[in-house]
Amino acid sequence: MRALPQEDTVYLGDTARVPYGTKSPETVVRFSRQIASFLVKKDIKLLVVACNTASAVALEVLQTEFPIPVVGVIEPGAERAVTVTRNGKVGVIGTAGTIRSSAYTKAIKRINPEIEVVTTACPMFVPLAEEGWVDNEVARLTAATYLQEMKTKGIDTLVLGCTHYPLLKGIIAEVMGSDVTLVDSAAETAKKVRAILSGSGELRPEAEQGNHHFYVTDVPAGFIRVGNRFLGSAFGDVYQVELEDEQFSEEDLL
Amino acid sequence: MRALPQEDTVYLGDTARVPYGTKSPETVVRFSRQIASFLVKKDIKLLVVACNTASAVALEVLQTEFPIPVVGVIEPGAERAVTVTRNGKVGVIGTAGTIRSSAYTKAIKRINPEIEVVTTACPMFVPLAEEGWVDNEVARLTAATYLQEMKTKGIDTLVLGCTHYPLLKGIIAEVMGSDVTLVDSAAETAKKVRAILSGSGELRPEAEQGNHHFYVTDVPAGFIRVGNRFLGSAFGDVYQVELEDEQFSEEDLL
Repeated sequence: MRALPQEDTVYLGDTARVPYGTKSPETVVRFSRQIASFLVKKDIKLLVVACNTASAVALEVLQTEFPIPVVGVIEPGAERAVTVTRNGKVGVIGTAGTIRSSAYTKAIKRINPEIEVVTTACPMFVPLAEEGWVDNEVARLTAATYLQEMKTKGIDTLVLGCTHYPLLKGIIAEVMGSDVTLVDSAAETAKKVRAILSGSGELRPEAEQGNHHFYVTDVPAGFIRVGNRFLGSAFGDVYQVELEDEQFSEEDLL
Repeated sequence: MRALPQEDTVYLGDTARVPYGTKSPETVVRFSRQIASFLVKKDIKLLVVACNTASAVALEVLQTEFPIPVVGVIEPGAERAVTVTRNGKVGVIGTAGTIRSSAYTKAIKRINPEIEVVTTACPMFVPLAEEGWVDNEVARLTAATYLQEMKTKGIDTLVLGCTHYPLLKGIIAEVMGSDVTLVDSAAETAKKVRAILSGSGELRPEAEQGNHHFYVTDVPAGFIRVGNRFLGSAFGDVYQVELEDEQFSEEDLL
């Protein structure tokens, strides 16, 4: 919204089924397909998979199945980390699903195989952010516990590989110290979107003003409350929708 | 399984969509209906809603809509707390959804309106239990933070109003002190099930040996890992199933 204010956005938050970070790849792929189908029916010209876990496990499937550009958040974050690091040692933190997939390690090594990548899953960070505990002793001790080993590895760059983690930036920086640069994917992903749309001649003129539509799968109240923590103010109407499951019977699965 | 070893059980864990404690009542009711429909098709004679959040918000709907006895975990826990307390001051901890519903307070006051009930939501307890952090400093500090105010209220009984909380019994007891009795609903719920089946003449002879079937909505691996923490050993085959959503179009909702 800040980087490309002229573009419309259609956002789907699967609030009835979050979090994704603890689910299996199979289930994340199934849910991601449902969401992509919903958004493609809204006539979008490009799809951003703005969730690290879904990017890590479902991106290729979506790129194969849908006829529009599909951009994940892993590659932009990996590119940024490779640019930022001076000593060639990069840390990555994320959900269990993202870390288990090794998606960041693979993406970083595709750009530069020489770079050493150290990864740690931090499952408690999402609940902490959702609880609003981003600057208390529990958050500090949790960060210290997860990052204890990471600190001994000599990294100079740490990728915040989950959409919620930038909310914990303060205490993560405190634990890691000022020598470690924190990287998050949001700004890089927006740049990539601009580049793709610009390349295909689909970028809107800057004079225009985009509209934003929000859809969620649970009732909107909770989403509006947490969303305000990210966007900082009221962000218009939020509608509840039902995602369609692929229809197969229980017998197919047994 | 321990209290009524002669009975078959059919268990459905909605692992693709947990946790329920953070979802709206509307969504918990919708998911609970899907699960009840699935289990009723398995020809069960009684349904236990073995989740505090679902019991708190969906029990009445299920009791109205399904033609078999439906037993929740709130009432048995409330009855136990009323029996246990000596000073008439009872604490209840649970998920945001359970506490917001006031289901325990209402159930306790229905039995004895004189009893004072103090409640606190502890959203971080489920992620802690899932992470296996049940006896470290983060768990201890989280419990101390949530229970700080509860400790000043002079309660002598505390209801663990969420299926995961008994895993944190050790540190909860440590924080609350030995004067406070911890109550969980599991044993009381099993007693209630026995009483209902006995009353209707549907209790199996004790010489029989029940079979147990487990169904989940995500792939079984994660469920088996966490399930072992509760049941203590391998518990047979676990099948993945798809729950059917009520079919209504997006337009119905807008």
